[in-house]
Order: sequence, then C-alpha cells, then structure tokens
Amino acid sequence: MDHLHVTYHLETAPEAAEAMAEALLLEQTVETPRRVAERDAFVREHLMGSIHAIHPDEKGGTQVVLALPLRTASADPSQFLNVLFGNTTLHPEVTLEDFDVPPALHTLFRGPRFGLAGLRARIGVPRRPLTATALKPVGLSVKSLAALCRTFAEGGIDLIKDDHYLGDHDFCPFEERVRACQATVDEVEAKTGHRTLYLPNLSGTPDQIHWQADLAQQIGVRAVMVAPMLLGLPAFYDLTHTRLEVPVLAHPSFAGSLRIRHETLLGKLFRLFGTDAVIFPNYGGRFPFSREQCAAIAQNLRADWGPYRPAFPVPAGGMNIERVPELIAFFGLDIILLIGGSLLESGEALREHTQALVASVEQAATQIVQAQNCKRRIASADKRG
Amino acid sequence: MDHLHVTYHLETAPEAAEAMAEALLLEQTVETPRRVAERDAFVREHLMGSIHAIHPDEKGGTQVVLALPLRTASADPSQFLNVLFGNTTLHPEVTLEDFDVPPALHTLFRGPRFGLAGLRARIGVPRRPLTATALKPVGLSVKSLAALCRTFAEGGIDLIKDDHYLGDHDFCPFEERVRACQATVDEVEAKTGHRTLYLPNLSGTPDQIHWQADLAQQIGVRAVMVAPMLLGLPAFYDLTHTRLEVPVLAHPSFAGSLRIRHETLLGKLFRLFGTDAVIFPNYGGRFPFSREQCAAIAQNLRADWGPYRPAFPVPAGGMNIERVPELIAFFGLDIILLIGGSLLESGEALREHTQALVASVEQAATQIVQAQNCKRRIASADKRG
Repeated sequence: MDHLHVTYHLETAPEAAEAMAEALLLEQTVETPRRVAERDAFVREHLMGSIHAIHPDEKGGTQVVLALPLRTASADPSQFLNVLFGNTTLHPEVTLEDFDVPPALHTLFRGPRFGLAGLRARIGVPRRPLTATALKPVGLSVKSLAALCRTFAEGGIDLIKDDHYLGDHDFCPFEERVRACQATVDEVEAKTGHRTLYLPNLSGTPDQIHWQADLAQQIGVRAVMVAPMLLGLPAFYDLTHTRLEVPVLAHPSFAGSLRIRHETLLGKLFRLFGTDAVIFPNYGGRFPFSREQCAAIAQNLRADWGPYRPAFPVPAGGMNIERVPELIAFFGLDIILLIGGSLLESGEALREHTQALVASVEQAATQIVQAQNCKRRIASADKRG
Repeated sequence: MDHLHVTYHLETAPEAAEAMAEALLLEQTVETPRRVAERDAFVREHLMGSIHAIHPDEKGGTQVVLALPLRTASADPSQFLNVLFGNTTLHPEVTLEDFDVPPALHTLFRGPRFGLAGLRARIGVPRRPLTATALKPVGLSVKSLAALCRTFAEGGIDLIKDDHYLGDHDFCPFEERVRACQATVDEVEAKTGHRTLYLPNLSGTPDQIHWQADLAQQIGVRAVMVAPMLLGLPAFYDLTHTRLEVPVLAHPSFAGSLRIRHETLLGKLFRLFGTDAVIFPNYGGRFPFSREQCAAIAQNLRADWGPYRPAFPVPAGGMNIERVPELIAFFGLDIILLIGGSLLESGEALREHTQALVASVEQAATQIVQAQNCKRRIASADKRG
C-alpha cells in the first residue's frame, strides 16, 4: 500500500531538526517509543512510516516530508486528518505545508461532485467570471432579505448567498427564508430569463444540517453554502459524499488559525473533501492575505489533480466594483467575484450598482477574450508568415 | 437578551487598537459597514454588539472584550463557534483568550452529563486519582490488544483507552476489537473484583461514529473516547447532547493550532460541549505545555461554572511512574493519570509495572489525605486551644 507524503515546516534549527523530525514521525504514526512499536512485525513493516526528505527551507527553518502509512490515514476522513496534522498541532513550531493524495485515497475522497464546469452548467454561463453577493446583515426579516434578493437578481447577479451568520433564527426562520428567496429568484428568472442561484447557509449540528439540506433541495435550491471548519470536516465529508445533490460553496469561517498554509487548507483540503467553490479573503481587502497566497489558493483549486474536478476560486472580503478588471486580469475568467458590503452601501441605487457590477464583469471578460483571440491570431499569422 | 462576552488578545499597538477592535466587532456581528447595518432598527438594536472593554495587556498588545449578540450565537452550536471565533481566525494578530457563558446559553449547552463525580461513580473510586493507559500502537491485532488489555486490567488500571489512531481497520475491525476488549475487562472484574473501564476510540464521519457509539453501548462499554476537533464540535455536540449514554473522554488531536488559548479550548469549550474528562499534554512531557497552562486547564475543568458539572483533567503525553507523587501533589486527587508509552516499554514486566503504578497512586493519595487530615486536626486543635 502507498504512503501519504506530508510536508511540514519546522521552526527548528538544522542541528535539532533530525531529532524533531523523528519525534514528529513517531507522533503521527505509532505514538510510542520506536523500540516498543517495532516489537510487532506487522507494525514494523506497515505502520512506522519514514522520513522521506529533510532539508533547510528558505524561511530559516526545516522542511520535512514524512511518508505516513495509508493503512491508518485511509480508514476514514477523521483518521486522514489525524494522520495529516493531529497531535502535532500541539507542537507550536510545526506548520502543515502540503500533502499528496496517492491513488489509494481516490476511493475515500471523491472531490467536487460538480466543480467549476458543473456549477457553470447550472447557471448557463460557459465562459465569463461569475458574480456573487450576500444577503446581510443578520437581523433583517425574511421579507427584507427577499426584497434584497429580488434587487440583486433583477440586477443580473449569478449567485446570491446567505450571510454566514444566518441560521434558523426565530426572527428569520430557515424554512421561511429559503422558500421566500428561492421563489424570488425563480420569479425573476421567469420574467427576465436570467438565472440566479440562491445559496442558503446550512448551519448547526449534522442532524440540523441534514434537515436543512433536504428541505432546501425539496424547495428547489440549486446550490448551498457551508463553513466546513465550523461544521467539522468529517461531517462536511458526509454531506458531500452521501447527502447533498447540489453543489456546495465553502465559507472560510474558523479556518484561518490552524497553522495549515491557507493554500493547502482552502485550496486542497476543502477541494478534496468535495467543495465546488471556495470563498477566501482576497488580497487588498480587509484581511491580510497576500497576492501570492491568493494566486496559490486559486491555482490549487483549479489545477489538474488526480481524478478531482477543478473548483471555483471565490475571492471576497472587502471587494468593490472598481477592482473588477484588476481581479479578472489577475485570476482569469474562471472565478466567482463575491462582492457584498460595498454593493449594500449603495442603498437606493442598489439595482443600478448591481447592474454596473454585472456589466463591468462582462466588459472586462470580453476585453480579455478579445485580447486572447488577438494574440492567438498574431501567433498563427507569425507561424504562417 | 443577554450578550456573550468574549475576550481577545490583539497583537496591535495601542494607537491602532480602537480601530482594530471596531473592525473585529463588525466582523463578528453584522459583517457590513456600520452605516449599512444601522439602517435597520432591529439590527441596530439587537445585533450590533459593542466593545465592552479595551486596554493594553501584559503581552504588549491589547485586550479587547466584545459583547456579542446572543441572538446570533445561541442559534445552534455552529453559530456559537462562528460568533466566538469565526472570520476573525483569518486575522493572524487575533487570539481567542476567554469567554463567558450567560444563563441564556444554559439550555443550548448542557455540559458534562456525568462529569468528575459521575465517572468516579462508574468506577467505584470516590477519592483517589484514577489511573489510565492506552492500547497501542495501531497495527496490533485484536488478539494482541485484548492481551494487553488483560494485563493492564489485572494490574489494576482504572481506564484503558484505545490509541487515537485506532479506527475501523481491516487489520483491527472496530466491532471485533470492542467485543474482545470489553469481554476482557468484564472477565477480569468477575475474577478480581476490580472494575476497569475500556474506552473505544470513536472515529469517522458522524454516521460512522453513531454506528460505533450504538454498537459499543450494546456491547456494554461504560465510556468512550472521541477527539472533538477531529470530529468537529457541532457533531461532538450532537453526540453528547442527543446520542451518547455513557461518559466521554476528549482527546486533543487537531486542537493545538487554533490560536485559542489551550485553557479556554480544552478547559472550557470542551467542557461546555459535554466532555466528562479531557486529555491534555502535561508539562515536562513531550509537548511544550507549561505548568501554568496545565494548572489553568485543570482549574477550568473543575471550577464552579454555572450549571455545569466539573470534568476530569487527564494530564498525559510522555508521563511515567516516577512522576506520580509530583503530579498528584500538583493537580490534587481529582485527576486521571494517563500513562501509555512508558508503561509499554516494560515489555515482559508490564503487569508488575502496572501494579507498581497503581500502588504508587494509592500511596501518594493516602499520604496527601493523611497530610490533609493532620492539617485539619491541628487547625481544629488550635481553634479549641
């Protein structure tokens, strides 16, 4: 059976790194002294793992790649996490940098069920970036949220998601909200021909979330939002692998402080566990994510990766209309642009500003496509010439 | 309705702290600019929260206490986490320090169902520290684990838990393991009169864990182990609040890197969510936890706290028999001493070393009780005299 290769950064000076790497290896495998574990032939042969590589890294610490036994990691999604970064989270000098997914894990993890292409097909937009916004703040009545929803949908937005603070509140019950918002986007589609997906936020215990997912699907929603780290990754796995029949957008709440590189957690783990689109804080917004981190998250979500469908990057967090051309130039056409608060600031002019956002995305996308076509023509003319 | 008071440490210089605190407040409540949220009267009145306190702290940063709306936080266990430390995990300068639980949350969170006293009653040991050990390493067959289990039980250990890498493996199936180990401790109890609890590790998706919990309870286990952060806290809540009929021991895997103070996460959040005993890395072991952190975790687990039963502290992680008197003197009598690897090193002498551990705990406990009684007699003699 294959091994799982996991890369860690240790804030450990080179002279202490070997000993730390050995301690890390034992911690993430047999969790006993080596001589105890090696008494048993099966353990010795199949469950010890090994240090695959160890060298100083550019951050002044040490990079360690461990080969960890899939016999433990492939037992279930929770054991996978446990082997990836379990007890070693308790060592403050260890960061999870990256991991590989060997073919033996492909049956456990099926990745996005719809992915980028499936989500595009649901909306009927094959090429340009998608637009998204949020129903907020929490505290608005169902009536107010549905009114917002109508304005956004009439303005031509592709996806409208619940704020992640929306649960099943007495002042805004889940069922009533989902019925009202889904009816609204359906009505607007019937009138204008523009399809908008409404994504309710699923929140609570796994039982509550199953109830919400079933109900939302009955009502006819075409996608949902979940915060995988709030819910817990094994429960999220359950949802994507056994329950949900519509695409899922992942929200990054509770995901920022895990000492796992953002591009690995949001870009790879979330995709592996089956999310179709991932919200992340964009550079230059209200969170301190760098351009490089955002590019790496997007790259990981869309890269070729075993049997896994590409997923949509959804940069968000303090975005505005003025940045649309820049963001499309930076991320390319396969993104969902999520603009919430700054649209809501427009007040009475909300519909017009929404239309302006939609038009700006179309214009920027057209320019990029034209520029690409132009380049292609020049290149092919050069070839002929 | 009350507010939830949450304390954060900001690595922010005093001159920037006010602005950061306001940003934090909006992030954890309405997630829109203030002027957008305040348009709605209900939102303005009930969902904005406030900065309760802000002052420089001894770490050279700023301590901020936010009063956050329970209308959002009390919706479900996932929203509670979301309000406590959701999007702000994405700000690397913010650490969750502490939180209060107002009475309005007492119906949502019921805390330990058995707690310290209930677990003592299950074992029939009213006063002395309890002893615990682990079945490991992963990779041993059911037969080998059951043989280990017998030796430990005959040696007089109170609790024997599965290693946290034990799942439902082909080389060690859950059902077979639990049947064999529970039968072993039952047999030993019938023979020696000493009751040992066997705690299987529940691992997997919520569905898999429910199946394991139901099966284990049918087989007759009297307590189980779960790693709440691997499973996800909302699923853990489901387990403790609606499914489980036996006490639960919490394992700290995946819990170390959250930028939540250990004493708050392991000592308060785990207790709030219903754990009866919490394993944590002890000072002077193989993890860098300090004496102060360990004392604070134990203090939080056992302190008077609203309607919540005290829970057992379970210091672990590189412990050995020699440290028993020191640990009992440090933590007091209400602890479970978890000693795994160093016991397993004894090889052929495992039963004798287990007996020595048990005897050493009894002796240290007796000395402490005698010293306490002696002090009490002197004090009362002084009073009389």
